Amino acid sequence: MATINTNYQKLQAGYLFPEIGKRVRNFAAANPSARIIRLGIGDVVLPLPPPIVDAIKVAADEMGRKDTFRGYGPEQGYDFLLDAVAAHFRSQGAEVAPDEIFVSDGSKCDTANIQEIFGSDNVIAVTDPVYPVYVDTNVMAGRTGTADGNGRYGKLVYLPTTAENGFEPALPSQHVDLIYLCSPNNPTGAVMSRASLQRWVDYAQKEGAVILFDAAYEAFIREPGLVHSIFEIPGARKVAIEFRSFSKTAGFTGTRCAFTVIPKELCARDGDGNAVALHGLWNRRHTTKFNGVSYPIQRAAAAAFSPEGSQLVKANIDYYMENARIIREGLGKAGYRVHGGENAPYIWLRVPEGTTSWQFFDRLLAEANVVGTPGSGFGSCGEGYFRLSAFGFRENVQEAVERIRTKLHA
Amino acid sequence: MATINTNYQKLQAGYLFPEIGKRVRNFAAANPSARIIRLGIGDVVLPLPPPIVDAIKVAADEMGRKDTFRGYGPEQGYDFLLDAVAAHFRSQGAEVAPDEIFVSDGSKCDTANIQEIFGSDNVIAVTDPVYPVYVDTNVMAGRTGTADGNGRYGKLVYLPTTAENGFEPALPSQHVDLIYLCSPNNPTGAVMSRASLQRWVDYAQKEGAVILFDAAYEAFIREPGLVHSIFEIPGARKVAIEFRSFSKTAGFTGTRCAFTVIPKELCARDGDGNAVALHGLWNRRHTTKFNGVSYPIQRAAAAAFSPEGSQLVKANIDYYMENARIIREGLGKAGYRVHGGENAPYIWLRVPEGTTSWQFFDRLLAEANVVGTPGSGFGSCGEGYFRLSAFGFRENVQEAVERIRTKLHA
Repeated sequence: MATINTNYQKLQAGYLFPEIGKRVRNFAAANPSARIIRLGIGDVVLPLPPPIVDAIKVAADEMGRKDTFRGYGPEQGYDFLLDAVAAHFRSQGAEVAPDEIFVSDGSKCDTANIQEIFGSDNVIAVTDPVYPVYVDTNVMAGRTGTADGNGRYGKLVYLPTTAENGFEPALPSQHVDLIYLCSPNNPTGAVMSRASLQRWVDYAQKEGAVILFDAAYEAFIREPGLVHSIFEIPGARKVAIEFRSFSKTAGFTGTRCAFTVIPKELCARDGDGNAVALHGLWNRRHTTKFNGVSYPIQRAAAAAFSPEGSQLVKANIDYYMENARIIREGLGKAGYRVHGGENAPYIWLRVPEGTTSWQFFDRLLAEANVVGTPGSGFGSCGEGYFRLSAFGFRENVQEAVERIRTKLHA
Repeated sequence: MATINTNYQKLQAGYLFPEIGKRVRNFAAANPSARIIRLGIGDVVLPLPPPIVDAIKVAADEMGRKDTFRGYGPEQGYDFLLDAVAAHFRSQGAEVAPDEIFVSDGSKCDTANIQEIFGSDNVIAVTDPVYPVYVDTNVMAGRTGTADGNGRYGKLVYLPTTAENGFEPALPSQHVDLIYLCSPNNPTGAVMSRASLQRWVDYAQKEGAVILFDAAYEAFIREPGLVHSIFEIPGARKVAIEFRSFSKTAGFTGTRCAFTVIPKELCARDGDGNAVALHGLWNRRHTTKFNGVSYPIQRAAAAAFSPEGSQLVKANIDYYMENARIIREGLGKAGYRVHGGENAPYIWLRVPEGTTSWQFFDRLLAEANVVGTPGSGFGSCGEGYFRLSAFGFRENVQEAVERIRTKLHA
């Protein structure tokens, strides 16, 4: 008789956001007149800039004409997009070749799938709090034990990342093989310093570890000198994979495009101890299990790098970061301790003493009709914290802050 | 030190189509004046019909306006598409609920990923010849041994599907847990009979097995009464998953949309022998590792079901099937034994006695400048066969047949 992958039975409850969705739906059904403001799931609200819309339409027309129709494209992405991405890296001080870039339909997919090319015996380190996808996909693949009372899975190495250590995860005290890092961080909004990233690269070189670096939010960095790409760090090309996305950067959460960079010199060991290039393994996976991103969508992504497109994309990011400032300063004045929101679209606040993250979620929803994300949903070290997203319309963000200030003063 | 997934080292050579691409590129470089006709990789050539192009453009405009912009959609797909798909199944005599449908970016992805929700101990049956993705993804997941001299992997159960058994795979003589079936078949072009499919459903019920039914080519069936969906077969909802695609049907190879159906009553066993619904497991996978198909692309897919859209899509299929007739009859007259091409866009021919599939590939390329696909690339029982695709422009198909007839008479 066919059997299931029983690792799925180790997974804790539902994925965080479906659970939030359920609570919000229940509340809305019971309170039909409540005007709910959603700053929970990090979803963009501003429309796609005109050059991006136009790029989709021009490409759609090409698909409708015999002489310009395109069938299967290269699974890795079209050259016009790979070249634009490589040029963008160069402008940020990181050297990445076009054929080291793999275009995909999302960073969630890429950060979920990357573990497949690694052995089941690798020791995995994640920060706590952490984007749940890194953890859940390793649970599904059988690299963990079961979860304890705090929701922590056996065999995983958790690196606390809290206000106490300035949101800079310390190097692990034991050997680890794969390390998921996210900077600017989801959910804490913290940016890892250059010195800290250099320490991680040095650690990975010493230990033969691989850093899985999620830079989906790099475009939100305001402060000059902060690191956008791990490949700005000397030695990183030998130890790191980087993930980037158009989702938050260019408003593509519903349009779907992202990319992953695997330097050709990056290796891991096979059963005989020989070094094997991860680039080739990922290429094999990508061409066997994926068929490329829709052509019109790749044109849309490329348009985000055009002179006009990049200016408009930047203007949208400025808009969200002004939201972040309003939330950060407003909640600060309301008595909350707030983190993040300066180089990231997330504000990570301390909930009032004696309250859990989910209790604050329910109170915020009931009293202010504002939806946020409980910090504990990102790990046990997130307990007592709460994430608010800067992705919203200005008037809603202002009203949410005002409601919290008046109804939930810390 | 980080280790690789060493199962990848069991994979045979490159994936079939990259190898073909390489040989064609080399030939073209050495013979720049040759006018090569490609009937190898099954890629469509006709442009998207106008209602589909318009649907993309209208949706792109929606994404460009504040009041109609869409961020994250449901990972499973929008209702407008799920409802259209469910209605289409109903019109074919198969009952499928909208929430049993999972929209994705390709059947290659879905048939590649589906194995993840099953245990590593399942015995897998595949036909021989077979679409390589079913095999390769199980190799990557560690469900096979190494390959033998014929390229057959240990632990897999191969079901010969040749002219000798009328291209109807016999039930396995040993117990198997998962069975990949593809009808109309890629590569043989054969359609499984209703009686045969009923036998498979009965077998699966008796053995507690799950049938993974790839119906990516169902729209090419011409003969009334042949089975389009496994869910037309009584009992199938308890034992089968079905995969479908817009790729060949609606010309979406570069546009990317597909869907998978998992009936809610379909179960497999966990470690304690309890029945677990596969629908829930796949939903967990889909929402954790995937973020939905691009909104404009889902609108494009829905337009393929509109009255005008479906008529134009059907006209394109008619065009390709007339190509199939030309190839089938032309090669028959040229002395070749030909199969398929009547209810599928693939013609499966016997290569001349004493020639291997790859030798015929090289000869066809060198002497007729026509690209096809060596049957042996699909499995050892494909040796001595050759696949020609009906996806091409009429004049090219006619010329290819004429060249083969005059230069490579069997």
